[in-house]
Parts: sequence; C-alpha cells; structure tokens
Amino acid sequence: MAELAGTSPETDEGFMREALAQARLAFDAGEVPVGAVIVRDGQIVSRGRNRRETGKNALYHAELEAIDAACKTLGGWRLPGCTLYVTLEPCPMCAGAVINSRVERVVYGATDFRFGSVKSVQQIFSLPYNHQPAVTDGVLAEECTALLREFFRRLRLKRGAQ
Amino acid sequence: MAELAGTSPETDEGFMREALAQARLAFDAGEVPVGAVIVRDGQIVSRGRNRRETGKNALYHAELEAIDAACKTLGGWRLPGCTLYVTLEPCPMCAGAVINSRVERVVYGATDFRFGSVKSVQQIFSLPYNHQPAVTDGVLAEECTALLREFFRRLRLKRGAQ
Repeated sequence: MAELAGTSPETDEGFMREALAQARLAFDAGEVPVGAVIVRDGQIVSRGRNRRETGKNALYHAELEAIDAACKTLGGWRLPGCTLYVTLEPCPMCAGAVINSRVERVVYGATDFRFGSVKSVQQIFSLPYNHQPAVTDGVLAEECTALLREFFRRLRLKRGAQ
Repeated sequence: MAELAGTSPETDEGFMREALAQARLAFDAGEVPVGAVIVRDGQIVSRGRNRRETGKNALYHAELEAIDAACKTLGGWRLPGCTLYVTLEPCPMCAGAVINSRVERVVYGATDFRFGSVKSVQQIFSLPYNHQPAVTDGVLAEECTALLREFFRRLRLKRGAQ
C-alpha cells in the first residue's frame, strides 16, 4: 500500500501522545484509560475518552466520542481523509463505527486480547464490508499498555482494601 | 437454550410492529427505514430510528439510538433483561454495542447481506467476546424487507428523474 499523506513514525507518535493525554484524563476520572483523537490534514479535529462509568452509558467509548465530535465538526457522516489515533485496539462497536464513518486510517497503541477486533478477537477490517481502513498498530504501545496496567493495579489494590 | 421470559411469536411480532413504526418515521424523513425498540419486562424502555442523513452523523443508527436512550432511562451502561427489536440485521457497530451493553436478546426482521453482522457478513455473537446474546431472526421479515425495498425503489425513481 502507498504511504498515506502525512504519515510518518514521528507524526504518528505525536498524535498518539495527544490520544494518551485523553487517556490520562480518563484515568484521573476513574475510568479505564483509553483516549482518542481524529486528525485530518495534520490538524486534530476531535478528541474523545472513555467515560462509560461516569457517563453510565455503554456507548461512551473514546473512539465513538471522537467520531461523533468529528461528524459534528466536519458536518457530515463521512470522515474521508481522517485518521483515528486511539491508545487501545478498538472493540467491535468502535471498529464498526470506523467502517460506517469511512475513517481512512486507524492507528492504535496497546493490544486488547479480550475485545480488540482489528487483530486480536477478529480481523474485522479484512471482512467484505464496503470500507477497509489502513491500520498501523503498536504506536507507543508500551506507554499505552503501562497506563492501563497502572489503572488495573490500583483498582485491584482499592478493591483489596475494601 | 431455555425459552427467555416473555418471549413468544405473538409478543415478538407485537414489538417488531413498534420497531416498524419507527422505521416508517425514518422512511417519511427520507432515511433508510430502520427502526428499533428495547423492551424489558414486557415494557418498551426506548425507541430509535435511523437518522444518519438528516443528523449528518455515522453513529445515528436505530439500534445505537435505542441503546443510548435505554442506558439513560435505566441509569447504567448494562442492559440486563433487555431485548432489542430491530427491523434490519445489525451492522458491526450496532452488534458491538449490543455486546458492550449486555443486551440479553436480539430480535430482527430483514436480512442485510451487505452489512449484517449477526448471520450474513459474519456471526459476531459466536466469537469469544464476553457476552453472547440470544438471537431470533426473520420476525416480520417480509414487512421489514418490503419497506426497505419501497424506499430504495423511490430513491431510484427520484434519482432517475433528476
């Protein structure tokens, strides 16, 4: 596949750091730390973070928040030329939203062996839907994974202390 | 599998008619006619319909609208004991939202050979995610399919006249 405009390891790491900043906000709110940003033409058009517990809503994943906000910012349901950066491998709902919104490229950090639907539980973007985004995985994977591990370590300590 | 509480062909058809009423509202708004309701203990707790074009948002599918409203009505991200009735086989995003919200049972009408992710493009509820809802398909399938066909027939006529 030809290299997509604006992609480079440095650029990808820079935007993943923005997604990590969103994940840290989730962490501070007591949420599983997952963050996302959507980028077009080198500019961030939207941000999202996991808010499932505080928002009491199964749909409040980082990617859905970012896609929702990008549709509102860009004024349409299609997001051509957009790249989604997310700290964790997307679940089937969020991967499906990528297909539905025609996000051009997905860049993620940590692997999710339980719910990840890009490479782990299934390879959803290889199925014959009408849109197959490009994928880059493992960007800042250690930092993304370390933040998740720290969250769950603290959660276990907290639960153990109760 | 033991029969789930409150399920019967008559009950399923009754609630699918409520989903069809939502689909007709979508039809009248110029949207691909898909409608949904979520039911718990024999009561409708939420409704949704496709609003992707008028709402200019890739997430505005009938099922996501109904799941979003049900989380708000019931006050949490888990929807145990809930059945989703939807006129069309769910896409991967909406099927993923069913998994994430722990909807107990999915009842759908028409088959979607292009995007349907319960039986058509893939069988997502058979994969090793942490939740596998029960599924009943083909309820009022002819009516659900006829409404979709009529929508696309009119769309072709309209486009042909332009």
